[in-house]
Amino acid sequence: MRTSIATVSLSGSLTEKLTAAARAGFDGVEIFENDLLASPLSPEEIRARTADLGLRIDLYQPMRDIEAVPEDEFERNLRRARHKFALMERLGADTVLVCSSVSPLAVDDDALAAGQLSALADVARDFGIRVAYEALAWGRHVNTYDHAWRVVEAAGHPALGTCLDSFHILARGSDPKGVEDIPGEKIFFLQLADAPLMAMDVLQWSRHYRCFPGQGGFDLAGLLGHVMRAGYRGPLSLEVFNDVFRQAEAGPTAVDAQRSLLVLQEAAGLAAPPAPVVPTGVSFAELVTPDAEPVSAVLGALGFTRTARHRSKPVDLWQQGEARVLLNTGPQARRDGTALAAVGLESPDPAGAARRAEALLAPVLPRRRAPEDAPLDAVAAPDGTELFFCATDRPELPGWTQDFERTDELPAPSGAPGGSAAGPVERIDHLALTQPWHQFDEAALFHRSVLGLAAQESVDVADPYGLHRSRAVTDTGGSVRIALGVGPGPADDGARSQHIALATADVVAAARRFRAAGGRLLPIPANYYDDLAARYEFTDGELATYRELGILYDRDAEGEFRHCWTETVGRVFFELVQRDGGYRGYGAVNAPVRLAAQHASRPVR
Amino acid sequence: MRTSIATVSLSGSLTEKLTAAARAGFDGVEIFENDLLASPLSPEEIRARTADLGLRIDLYQPMRDIEAVPEDEFERNLRRARHKFALMERLGADTVLVCSSVSPLAVDDDALAAGQLSALADVARDFGIRVAYEALAWGRHVNTYDHAWRVVEAAGHPALGTCLDSFHILARGSDPKGVEDIPGEKIFFLQLADAPLMAMDVLQWSRHYRCFPGQGGFDLAGLLGHVMRAGYRGPLSLEVFNDVFRQAEAGPTAVDAQRSLLVLQEAAGLAAPPAPVVPTGVSFAELVTPDAEPVSAVLGALGFTRTARHRSKPVDLWQQGEARVLLNTGPQARRDGTALAAVGLESPDPAGAARRAEALLAPVLPRRRAPEDAPLDAVAAPDGTELFFCATDRPELPGWTQDFERTDELPAPSGAPGGSAAGPVERIDHLALTQPWHQFDEAALFHRSVLGLAAQESVDVADPYGLHRSRAVTDTGGSVRIALGVGPGPADDGARSQHIALATADVVAAARRFRAAGGRLLPIPANYYDDLAARYEFTDGELATYRELGILYDRDAEGEFRHCWTETVGRVFFELVQRDGGYRGYGAVNAPVRLAAQHASRPVR
Repeated sequence: MRTSIATVSLSGSLTEKLTAAARAGFDGVEIFENDLLASPLSPEEIRARTADLGLRIDLYQPMRDIEAVPEDEFERNLRRARHKFALMERLGADTVLVCSSVSPLAVDDDALAAGQLSALADVARDFGIRVAYEALAWGRHVNTYDHAWRVVEAAGHPALGTCLDSFHILARGSDPKGVEDIPGEKIFFLQLADAPLMAMDVLQWSRHYRCFPGQGGFDLAGLLGHVMRAGYRGPLSLEVFNDVFRQAEAGPTAVDAQRSLLVLQEAAGLAAPPAPVVPTGVSFAELVTPDAEPVSAVLGALGFTRTARHRSKPVDLWQQGEARVLLNTGPQARRDGTALAAVGLESPDPAGAARRAEALLAPVLPRRRAPEDAPLDAVAAPDGTELFFCATDRPELPGWTQDFERTDELPAPSGAPGGSAAGPVERIDHLALTQPWHQFDEAALFHRSVLGLAAQESVDVADPYGLHRSRAVTDTGGSVRIALGVGPGPADDGARSQHIALATADVVAAARRFRAAGGRLLPIPANYYDDLAARYEFTDGELATYRELGILYDRDAEGEFRHCWTETVGRVFFELVQRDGGYRGYGAVNAPVRLAAQHASRPVR
Repeated sequence: MRTSIATVSLSGSLTEKLTAAARAGFDGVEIFENDLLASPLSPEEIRARTADLGLRIDLYQPMRDIEAVPEDEFERNLRRARHKFALMERLGADTVLVCSSVSPLAVDDDALAAGQLSALADVARDFGIRVAYEALAWGRHVNTYDHAWRVVEAAGHPALGTCLDSFHILARGSDPKGVEDIPGEKIFFLQLADAPLMAMDVLQWSRHYRCFPGQGGFDLAGLLGHVMRAGYRGPLSLEVFNDVFRQAEAGPTAVDAQRSLLVLQEAAGLAAPPAPVVPTGVSFAELVTPDAEPVSAVLGALGFTRTARHRSKPVDLWQQGEARVLLNTGPQARRDGTALAAVGLESPDPAGAARRAEALLAPVLPRRRAPEDAPLDAVAAPDGTELFFCATDRPELPGWTQDFERTDELPAPSGAPGGSAAGPVERIDHLALTQPWHQFDEAALFHRSVLGLAAQESVDVADPYGLHRSRAVTDTGGSVRIALGVGPGPADDGARSQHIALATADVVAAARRFRAAGGRLLPIPANYYDDLAARYEFTDGELATYRELGILYDRDAEGEFRHCWTETVGRVFFELVQRDGGYRGYGAVNAPVRLAAQHASRPVR
């Protein structure tokens, strides 16, 4: 279907917005009046610019409080409308949006509303313009879609139809099934916006918290199904008022927006991009670092062994059990310091996973490899993390490990190319990636739709200097877990921390081994353990051990969680985690203690 | 009265919070449990630290979901309570807060609740501790203050009383008058928080939007009156969960907090700081600039004349009508670039105004002046702007103009020390100061309480790169108007713009004069004027003139407003405004067009 986006959904000047929409593949735009008023381009220049960009102007919305008003007020409204219709002729826009009146002058008289809208449509028709009438959720008298439709039906004017807006329908809890009773040709336009489910004043909710489909809590696929069954064939248009998008760069926001419509169409059965290929595990985590020494020391103390080296690049493979960490001292490291730059996701069908990602607008990464290297499919996540779709040790597929050569320095290796001696770490439990502040909602939708992971609830975590949010995306079996985090504001993006959590069956042994090998665990205040003693009954020895090592504890209905953290190198630290009995979380209850301890262990904030 | 603040209201480590609270003059603190858990200090060390700082630990709140639960659950709660009471002994805290249960296990049985709270109070008494029971607004069964009191009354235990929290009382719309029916000695504690009036889920409202008294919409003075009439003699304690304060520096937040309690006590008749001395006009605006040339050129083109020079400092006085601008090229200029650094407020009693400001914790500025200069009372506003309390040309008081010497280069001067030839500008209409993001609410309370101005409603304004907010503070006659603005987030603090709006009776003449003298007005898009033509009927010539000059137009129920802007120098620009017929606003409807035009006229964003 054709896709469109309201310019209010993107930041910047009108020119920046149009360019971003076109580059992201939109077919059209709704021009928001303030964007036109503030533009130095004339309507004719805007028309030419949109045409050059391959965009259609699908809608213009310059009018408010038109209908069901006293006659002299309506005459003023018609006068204004004539000006605006003349402007629309210059713009080349043929559909005007009229929202239901919020004016205190408006009277509760559907016949008057229908008559005045009909008179407006008469004028519009002379300009070749259609009027799309929409119920605002906070309209004074007309505030449900079925009421707006009754008024349109009563008017019975060919140039008058209705506009449906998912927010206004779903925020009021209206049953969207009734949409099917509206003749499709009378649905002149469809505006789509999702929103997080919040109990708050609907006007403020709409103005500040709308988001793209799939980023909130509304069933937009269900609504779209009803609209399509009604016979609607116009564009799917996003109208999203959102305080974060207003501050974000228009380009990435437009891509995020277009992706949301692709996923929505797939969910509604209107499009069939390549099916998701859910990853089955984490093949590797790749750290870039300008100086391999500090990270190598931590990895060694954790029980990792350097098992192999890339044939053509300065990349070492460190391995322990099924946990693999690549340490890259190549050019990127000098730019980013020590950071988690790439994740290998074990994929049943790497090429299929890449096709899915590309269809959903993930940037496909150039294959920076020597001619003899194995082909590796990779895309970039919204935060810039490179995601590689891998097949490890599966002879039928090209494997990334083929590019690595065993090093000679190994103890008892097992399995190609490295294998490792038995250590406490079994595999990567989860990866924690702090997202740019403007892209938190995009990141969750990306991981859900591109990778086929499920997004968990968002959790607030108090840091000494602001509230953080965290949201995990996982596969059903818990083989792939990525915790997406975000700080309190865009100013904190520079200090984003990342971590690699390593699963062990015995966190006490793993922590002791780490300390014995010279590793430094994050010190945890004694007060934390006094509280643990108040909350739970432990054997004395158990709690003393946790206190000694800096191990934290949590419990849920399913099981128990014990974890501790290494010191931070660059932006990266490691976590040792022991999950027992089906514990599903990430120890969020302990995060404030961890964050405070990390602040305290930094010399300067 | 004694004042106290919950550590959760301030950012940073526990040590930072305690220090900030003590420096701001608080007598005590409530220690929030997570702050203790995350602190490397032992309870004994915390006790010593607070004592050294002159603080008392007024309250500790380590327990949730205590009462009205099944017996085995209550046994676990008592076990936990014993641990916490032992901790409180080490801390030296003698009052524990117990909030009404939100547990799904809790049953609706007041007798059970009273019995279990009584059992808890028995244990507490053994540790010398009092239990203060508080109704959370979202408590499962007990969620109003009168219900909590009925439970406490039924328990009839000397170590059990109630804690009142203004948010929980007022957010639910309870009638606070009933507080007077509670015996004062059974009100063990009073927590105060204001909040903006919002229609939203009360839990989210409480967790994210609480603010200090006077910064929201609750009648806290009224509530406090009821509490005092009940006989309460404990501390006034602030418990404010606020997303902004979490990110702000603890020091200024603590001062803001203490000021809010001083103002609240004054409003409730419990304290009598020096009465406010409302300013009657703007004596001057002082710009600092490293290079006087560009600003001088703009001032000259606007019709200002350089009428005098400071005797001992590199400061020129530019004047036109009653509008006076000081241009300071002294040392501060090299640090800040061109900025609005100080405002002279005409005061009926400069010394009294300064006494008021000092009593309300405004930093009193050192009088940087030569021995022969007139004494000038000055304080710093939260954004660092220096506020001088002035008496201009009033022989009975020392006048700031005495420090200036007439320059010889003047045209026909009138009045001492400068006076000016007749020009289009009559006086300063308003000053617009963009505030640091973390201090917007503080700024409004400061100007309201310290200066005795009235705060208007907050207005949202769309900028191409985010939502701005603006809130004006004014005297009743409109002689002093300060528009406090704030950008979308802390990251934008660096680019804060400021402006000086100049009142004229004929903005067209003023704009023409400015242009004729070589001044550049901000160019306004033609589309804006097409829209004006659609909205209002003008004579053709009138609109053409506005279009030619870049004058914008607004109208309210009282009158009309016409305005235009100069180019920006450093952070500062000037506005020419013509108010007719009692228009009260600031042309906020035109601000998006102005902001977009200012972005467009900058070479780089």
